[in-house]
Amino acid sequence: MIAHYPVRFAHCDPAGIAYYPRLFELCDGAIEDWCALVLRVPRRIMHLELGLGMPTVHMEARFIAPCRLGEILDIEIAARRVGNSSIDLTVRVGCGGAPRFEVDYTQVLMTLTEARATPWPDAWRTIIESELTVRNDA
Amino acid sequence: MIAHYPVRFAHCDPAGIAYYPRLFELCDGAIEDWCALVLRVPRRIMHLELGLGMPTVHMEARFIAPCRLGEILDIEIAARRVGNSSIDLTVRVGCGGAPRFEVDYTQVLMTLTEARATPWPDAWRTIIESELTVRNDA
Amino acid sequence: MIAHYPVRFAHCDPAGIAYYPRLFELCDGAIEDWCALVLRVPRRIMHLELGLGMPTVHMEARFIAPCRLGEILDIEIAARRVGNSSIDLTVRVGCGGAPRFEVDYTQVLMTLTEARATPWPDAWRTIIESELTVRNDA
Amino acid sequence: MIAHYPVRFAHCDPAGIAYYPRLFELCDGAIEDWCALVLRVPRRIMHLELGLGMPTVHMEARFIAPCRLGEILDIEIAARRVGNSSIDLTVRVGCGGAPRFEVDYTQVLMTLTEARATPWPDAWRTIIESELTVRNDA
Repeated sequence: MIAHYPVRFAHCDPAGIAYYPRLFELCDGAIEDWCALVLRVPRRIMHLELGLGMPTVHMEARFIAPCRLGEILDIEIAARRVGNSSIDLTVRVGCGGAPRFEVDYTQVLMTLTEARATPWPDAWRTIIESELTVRNDA
Repeated sequence: MIAHYPVRFAHCDPAGIAYYPRLFELCDGAIEDWCALVLRVPRRIMHLELGLGMPTVHMEARFIAPCRLGEILDIEIAARRVGNSSIDLTVRVGCGGAPRFEVDYTQVLMTLTEARATPWPDAWRTIIESELTVRNDA
Repeated sequence: MIAHYPVRFAHCDPAGIAYYPRLFELCDGAIEDWCALVLRVPRRIMHLELGLGMPTVHMEARFIAPCRLGEILDIEIAARRVGNSSIDLTVRVGCGGAPRFEVDYTQVLMTLTEARATPWPDAWRTIIESELTVRNDA
Repeated sequence: MIAHYPVRFAHCDPAGIAYYPRLFELCDGAIEDWCALVLRVPRRIMHLELGLGMPTVHMEARFIAPCRLGEILDIEIAARRVGNSSIDLTVRVGCGGAPRFEVDYTQVLMTLTEARATPWPDAWRTIIESELTVRNDA
């Protein structure tokens, strides 16, 4: 999935470039859209109806060039690996073909009440695995 | 101008509803879009090339109903009054026809380096006045 | 109650001054401290154990001078009025004796599950009323 | 350096735990304090007077346990390595002796106008190297 998000005034710091904690909010918004559009589970359903969350347990980010006010960022999300209850996602962010930064996430499907890892439902796993296949073909 | 913005996970607090400081970020993003689309001045140009800003000097907000995760908010921005270097904007936020909250802003066009009020450029004033006219007709 | 909070890099925008939605986060943090220190109810207890919240239903803000990176803000919180389940708070923010901005809030004590206004518990009301008295004496 | 920061309502998400992009704001605030207290350069001086910044070029975060509303986090910052114009910092975050998360940062000292890496001033390098020594002794 590739989606497009503006770098807003609210994202930018006194150096005039996007402040990295807010870039992670943007990435998280893109993962939210990925859940809704690819996994077909809006976070409202995931959190409030199913009582599930996808907290990040590990992440690694490489910043290549600053993101500037008014740029439209292209955010690409790709599933790299699926475990019993975990997923590895890579978020690649660029602007007009030039790379900006990349983040590798490991997230785990958890129950919100007991904060316990729970296996992917079959329907979700099927979708994630098909996403993996698509990427391997590419 | 009416535009549409999702209530994201990042906007919501432990009570499961949008946290009001982040609703003001949403409103500010909508005003940013209003500047670009109606006033025809993206904030990047306004800030970085023209050295101008539109800080808020007064605001009043009325919260009618909470905004919930996953809702798509309809944000309407209307110019109510234009002064020599000031503008009164009303931001009305609803969801599916039901009101959520309203904010009345007074903002002032200022130079960033001297932090001094500066008169509206004629082209901008013409647009703002036509916006006022449109609203009076409505 | 007067408390002191730094203007951090994270609060500041490309104009090099604090971005107003984040000033409201600072004010909300100060109200959080006021709840814990004056009302003797940390928000963790209020929200998670008592199932209560204090959403804002009305607010009015006057911005007098910008808040700059590295300044230590003095935030004073005063109760102005208490109703059956509402409270009027004024937050005055300054730096080194110079005023920066002021916010008048009306907040309502509500149950989180039903989102219904609920009367102040007697112990809280007694504290709030004594705070009002202190201010009237001043 | 170890400093202490509360997990505020503003940091928490609908799952009732701190939202990770805001944990990075907390870490960045702690690095800001480290610059002022250890490096003896407040960010206001660094950015506005010296025209320098310390953008992150790489970071890796490991989340061990959630941070909850009302907890006081102990944030420890340690310099691990200093290069010609780069620094490796590790931020360890815990609560009451229990680990919460850790972040390894590589940041680079850069000029804000040309966005070019610039060598550490001698006085800063001396401090950073003495910090490294302290850690190796520990």
